[in-house]
Amino acid sequence: MDYDDCLGCPPAEPEAKKSWQEIAAEKRQADLAKIPLEWVLSPSVVAEARKQQKLVDGFVDGLLDEETCYITALDAPDLLQQMRSGSKTAVQVVTAFCKRAAAIHQITRNMLEIGFEAAFERATELDSFFQANKRLVGPLHGIPLTLKDQFHIKGLETSMAFVGWIGTFEGKRGTGKEKIFESEIIKEFRALGAVPIGKVGTSAETSNNILGYLWSPHNQSLSSGGSSGGEAVMQALRGSAFGIGTDIGGSVSMPAAFNGIFSLKPSSGRISMKDVANTGPGQLIMPTVAGIMGVSVTTLQLVLRSLLSTEPWLQDPYVIPLPWREAEEYNPNSGDATNETKPSFGFMDNDGVVTPHPPVQRGLRMVRDALNEAGFNLLDWNPPSNRESEAIHGVIARGDGCLDVWDALQLSGEPEVHEIEGLFEPHGPRMPLSLPDYQDVVVRMRDYRNKYQTYWMSTAEKTTDGQPVEVFISPVTPSAGLLPDKFFYAEYTNSTNVLDFPTVVIPVTTVDKDIDKVDPCFKPLSDIDKINMDAYDPSAYHGAPAAVQVVGRRLGEEKLLSMAQIVVDALKRYKTRRQGKCRLHS
Amino acid sequence: MDYDDCLGCPPAEPEAKKSWQEIAAEKRQADLAKIPLEWVLSPSVVAEARKQQKLVDGFVDGLLDEETCYITALDAPDLLQQMRSGSKTAVQVVTAFCKRAAAIHQITRNMLEIGFEAAFERATELDSFFQANKRLVGPLHGIPLTLKDQFHIKGLETSMAFVGWIGTFEGKRGTGKEKIFESEIIKEFRALGAVPIGKVGTSAETSNNILGYLWSPHNQSLSSGGSSGGEAVMQALRGSAFGIGTDIGGSVSMPAAFNGIFSLKPSSGRISMKDVANTGPGQLIMPTVAGIMGVSVTTLQLVLRSLLSTEPWLQDPYVIPLPWREAEEYNPNSGDATNETKPSFGFMDNDGVVTPHPPVQRGLRMVRDALNEAGFNLLDWNPPSNRESEAIHGVIARGDGCLDVWDALQLSGEPEVHEIEGLFEPHGPRMPLSLPDYQDVVVRMRDYRNKYQTYWMSTAEKTTDGQPVEVFISPVTPSAGLLPDKFFYAEYTNSTNVLDFPTVVIPVTTVDKDIDKVDPCFKPLSDIDKINMDAYDPSAYHGAPAAVQVVGRRLGEEKLLSMAQIVVDALKRYKTRRQGKCRLHS
Repeated sequence: MDYDDCLGCPPAEPEAKKSWQEIAAEKRQADLAKIPLEWVLSPSVVAEARKQQKLVDGFVDGLLDEETCYITALDAPDLLQQMRSGSKTAVQVVTAFCKRAAAIHQITRNMLEIGFEAAFERATELDSFFQANKRLVGPLHGIPLTLKDQFHIKGLETSMAFVGWIGTFEGKRGTGKEKIFESEIIKEFRALGAVPIGKVGTSAETSNNILGYLWSPHNQSLSSGGSSGGEAVMQALRGSAFGIGTDIGGSVSMPAAFNGIFSLKPSSGRISMKDVANTGPGQLIMPTVAGIMGVSVTTLQLVLRSLLSTEPWLQDPYVIPLPWREAEEYNPNSGDATNETKPSFGFMDNDGVVTPHPPVQRGLRMVRDALNEAGFNLLDWNPPSNRESEAIHGVIARGDGCLDVWDALQLSGEPEVHEIEGLFEPHGPRMPLSLPDYQDVVVRMRDYRNKYQTYWMSTAEKTTDGQPVEVFISPVTPSAGLLPDKFFYAEYTNSTNVLDFPTVVIPVTTVDKDIDKVDPCFKPLSDIDKINMDAYDPSAYHGAPAAVQVVGRRLGEEKLLSMAQIVVDALKRYKTRRQGKCRLHS
Repeated sequence: MDYDDCLGCPPAEPEAKKSWQEIAAEKRQADLAKIPLEWVLSPSVVAEARKQQKLVDGFVDGLLDEETCYITALDAPDLLQQMRSGSKTAVQVVTAFCKRAAAIHQITRNMLEIGFEAAFERATELDSFFQANKRLVGPLHGIPLTLKDQFHIKGLETSMAFVGWIGTFEGKRGTGKEKIFESEIIKEFRALGAVPIGKVGTSAETSNNILGYLWSPHNQSLSSGGSSGGEAVMQALRGSAFGIGTDIGGSVSMPAAFNGIFSLKPSSGRISMKDVANTGPGQLIMPTVAGIMGVSVTTLQLVLRSLLSTEPWLQDPYVIPLPWREAEEYNPNSGDATNETKPSFGFMDNDGVVTPHPPVQRGLRMVRDALNEAGFNLLDWNPPSNRESEAIHGVIARGDGCLDVWDALQLSGEPEVHEIEGLFEPHGPRMPLSLPDYQDVVVRMRDYRNKYQTYWMSTAEKTTDGQPVEVFISPVTPSAGLLPDKFFYAEYTNSTNVLDFPTVVIPVTTVDKDIDKVDPCFKPLSDIDKINMDAYDPSAYHGAPAAVQVVGRRLGEEKLLSMAQIVVDALKRYKTRRQGKCRLHS
């Protein structure tokens, strides 16, 4: 076109600036459009689903064919076995989980990015590899996973649920990295054979301006919890074989507990966070960590072990060169373990600040009884107070005023969701702390870690084998399930971040409104304890999962996971015996 | 005494407040008074010593008896052998080193605290143990060590050379910890059988208001360097069998280089810094680390390996649970190493910012030739620039305005020594950075580490074995020896702190004024390069040691030390061959 041709042309119509609501709606639609037509649920089914009290235990199965239900009921090790033996192909496995994930997303709105197409392609490749080589490509061959939308995956957008990040790379335009750049952990998963099928929503308790509020599939009047609630819902409803969330103050552990699944939040430096979107920029004193979510300890172990087999420390200078240490695992079959030489567990049913609600108390008693019956020694766990963790955690995590979150919100003009209002002043971010004030708290954190370590070592004086306890058991949160706006206390998990301890969440039971009532003699330990217990309502929480966490020493994931398996096994035997007795007496 | 007795009494004379000069002089005197009378040097001998060009190579030996010279000439492994065989007792070993340290201190004034008495007692205990059990108490049985005066040892004061800390615990009075509290590493050394005999001075380049300026024993018109210069002098003159310094920007590596000794600055998290005095409070993003100083790589390895055998991570939550990993050591005797499978070294003779002085260049050439002759592959090392490290290091290390140092100085009113004037404004500390500005630099540090890692891994494309280089070799500082006030560039070491890389310093040669002249074709790479080279004067530096450093991957101390030993062995063979050739041609 010659220059002259343009004379007299009207200037190009500037595209009308879209509102954040329009942009969010377009993203939702674009995502839904990626679901194959034959998997689209009718509006009436979706409406019906939303009316259910719970989605677990059958509702989602009722929407799917038998083959899909069969495959998605298998845990990762069983899926591998099916593919190794040739009984199932990677395409079959990936298709089944994508189909189920599609149903889950249509009902719950937990996905920010759907990546089925690339997943099918990769599954086809894996099947070709298996055909040609008669072996799996790696220890996670064909295993479908989902991730919190903080990890970059080629072909998918990363928005972290910020409307202003849509169509950008971490809020910036024209970087050339959009939908191309990949987080280090994704490269590792690809090498291991795992197949990412999409990314789930993220946000506090769990609400964001793109997907709205995410409810618990155990009781749809309860929250799924956050910030990795989207992933917890996905695991609870088996939309992928495992998931990856992130955690700086219980963001993996709490939604795992609220949704009745297992999780591992490792110590910092075990799983790569390289090239992951905005994780509290410059806050490396108590860094955000990637956590694994799934439906068994076996799967948590499989995933961590597989990731470590890729030697991530060669690529990520913040990963510690610690391969999986088999020798650190507790082996219950070593033969020479008597009740005297069995390892001891610390046991904290209450941190002296906030008393767990009755169903959590009952879950703790079940674990205590199960371990006692299995012959393990339990020791009262009375470490330095969680009040100290409370004084430290917020300052370290948010002392900078959360400017990054504020700035991300300003990009589109979306308001902060109600659940994070407390982070900011009415019309702007809070003033950041001064560097010397911040460093004072860092010193306080160091002193707290030292005191805790001294306490931990001192337990050697009280155990039967003369060794310090290996791990300790505690509540994850004071409530089983989460009533919207009734979240008062996070120190059971925050303390594991302040202390950099790895922690495994184990579901134990569910709330029974007829059993789990407040002890009439309950006397609050603190103001917050009273507020928390007053908010308990057996009927409102009915059906919600109650969980415990098993907490290990810094960087002691191998030992921790093996001890968590002991808890799971003991609980299983305990429940079987109780059921037997019930039948006997009925 | 009745109340009445006091009527009319004059009020108790208030003790006149002492000046900081008086307090410092009293400390010096009290310390000298701890030297047994028979070891006190006459003023004329001290005056004579101070007139020497150099104190190494015989002068100190000339002041001591044969037995003392014999013992103190032995390196730690040989001392252990002597004690294990019963040829020498711990009392003999400890006495010899204390005697020598006493002489060194009287001449150089490098000790802040003398701890001979407790050392004799401990040595006696060790001998009793050996008599009774016919074995050594641990892998450092009877080995005398000295430490920078930052570590707390029962019975000794910790002042860090601050006059205001004298008679206090870290500047506070009446804590009950004074001269009782011990740093974690001291407990470990005690368990291993090592015997602390005293603590050495600390400060920048090395001057402080208690001990004055510390000169290099290789050339007494040069500085010993800092801040672990006191320890470097102790090792250079063999006043203890090994020493412990601390390092956040070359404070172990640089004085090691300037004084012709070996050192290991490990990655953070390998050696405990628990309960050590003031180490940049709250600055845990790039923490100060403890480093080992001695006269051989073997000793550095022995000390690290021994410390790790105590499982320090059980006591110190900041130590990573990484035992000594023998499998990570390079084994030159594995038999199957050909020139093709031998590991590769990165080699940086110049960082593109500041050119090393001619003697350092010659030292580097010697190492290059030695390794080439030994059949090792060298690869030009062109990583992300040290200019990036320069932009990061000072902000992280001193972004808080060094308030802790300022406050410590104010306690006594002593002025800052000339060498650290630059840390402060004329009449007070600098304004600290804002927390967000600080965190921006932390992000920059993370990005630099990532880029460096990517570079490191990319070297696999260029090596003969297809593996990335194992370690790289570079200058330690641009100068061999340090002329007072002629210190211009620290990035060869600062970068190892920013990157958290372990580094071993190896002495190579000494300045020869007749050989080490500036190339007439020298063209400066930068303004600071010109300033630095203009300051070079062959005569002034004559006799000063020239060193290189071997730098490893984060937490890769085992590999690094084994590769450093290769360099030492190759250099030894190279020098022997050269001497042979000289004799042949003369």
